Amino acid sequence: MWVGKVIGTLVATPKDTSLTGSKLLIVQPFTFVHQVREPIVAVDTIGAGTGETVLVVEGSSARLVTGKPNAAVDAAIVGIIDSMEINNGLIEE
Amino acid sequence: MWVGKVIGTLVATPKDTSLTGSKLLIVQPFTFVHQVREPIVAVDTIGAGTGETVLVVEGSSARLVTGKPNAAVDAAIVGIIDSMEINNGLIEE
Amino acid sequence: MWVGKVIGTLVATPKDTSLTGSKLLIVQPFTFVHQVREPIVAVDTIGAGTGETVLVVEGSSARLVTGKPNAAVDAAIVGIIDSMEINNGLIEE
Amino acid sequence: MWVGKVIGTLVATPKDTSLTGSKLLIVQPFTFVHQVREPIVAVDTIGAGTGETVLVVEGSSARLVTGKPNAAVDAAIVGIIDSMEINNGLIEE
Amino acid sequence: MWVGKVIGTLVATPKDTSLTGSKLLIVQPFTFVHQVREPIVAVDTIGAGTGETVLVVEGSSARLVTGKPNAAVDAAIVGIIDSMEINNGLIEE
Repeated sequence: MWVGKVIGTLVATPKDTSLTGSKLLIVQPFTFVHQVREPIVAVDTIGAGTGETVLVVEGSSARLVTGKPNAAVDAAIVGIIDSMEINNGLIEE
Repeated sequence: MWVGKVIGTLVATPKDTSLTGSKLLIVQPFTFVHQVREPIVAVDTIGAGTGETVLVVEGSSARLVTGKPNAAVDAAIVGIIDSMEINNGLIEE
Repeated sequence: MWVGKVIGTLVATPKDTSLTGSKLLIVQPFTFVHQVREPIVAVDTIGAGTGETVLVVEGSSARLVTGKPNAAVDAAIVGIIDSMEINNGLIEE
Repeated sequence: MWVGKVIGTLVATPKDTSLTGSKLLIVQPFTFVHQVREPIVAVDTIGAGTGETVLVVEGSSARLVTGKPNAAVDAAIVGIIDSMEINNGLIEE
Repeated sequence: MWVGKVIGTLVATPKDTSLTGSKLLIVQPFTFVHQVREPIVAVDTIGAGTGETVLVVEGSSARLVTGKPNAAVDAAIVGIIDSMEINNGLIEE
């Protein structure tokens, strides 16, 4: 899983029926060190919104979280992060 | 999932029988920040065409979307994107 | 699998029910050569703590390790590393 | 899936029994933009040879294509590419 | 799959029970072009040792190779490479 920030939303009218009613959010991975990464699209399963820091799961686990066995999903927001406690002295930079 | 643009098509005559009749499109991930990435090949399940901005799913979820349990597929176009709303102030660059 | 160091913890109050009671740790991959990488979030299954060097497994195997078939998990700490023996002459740099 | 060129072969005598009789080819992803990538090893399921431009599928889908449920395979050549039609004006560089 | 060199071993005493008795080797991907990569940890299923050039499979296929359905494994050594034949004129650099 990884920590990310919700930076926006998207609308796709023609889409796989398994996505009907799903909220699709654009999430950028949080930069702990210095490797800025591109955002991905995740299904929201927890009620997240733009600006929130979230926990994202990827792969087949994301699909299973949706409860639809054939969902067209490979990334899901599965938590909203309250706090992180990092020991900065342990980070390799 | 990720946002991409369909930049072309390909034809493969000798191919796995599970791909017979599939439309194979070449899709480049959209650059939100600055990391330009190489295109991949995705099966179209939604009626997309060159120039369109699409939603791509990868991994076993892409295979399941095809409805063929043993399809030789690890990426599928599962939506055509109408609009994105990004809060630019939230993007890390 | 890969070797990493636990650099911190996170708390997510709204979260998928499959994560209730799980300890979520932030783990940075160990740099053997020179490619510093961003941390990820892993479920602890072994009793690890901040500062420890651990073994992380990813993907569907991480989900299965939790014993919950639909767990919202794609990375798990599955060992605490006592020692590594590296033949430095064999490393490409 | 991705487009690649077969650049060579390899021989592994001690190997998992699921690979007995499999042809293992070394395939380098094709560079559309500018990101040259390292080759990987794929099982040939289609009769490809060195110098040919092929379609590669990865992950669990590659394993399933072999028809052996526990095959030690995470990449397979599943097509030989006749032609690609790219709209160069659409590529981000 | 990919080609790598075994550069060392590791010992993890507290570990998932599925790893009891497994030999864990540290393997660095072989550099064909110029992208040096970090080593990963793979379970040995074939009798490999430090200094040998091996074939590594990743993902759910690696788990299945172990024969334990819930093994905490996402990478396995499944062959020892005798020889590679590369057509250098075909490599993109």
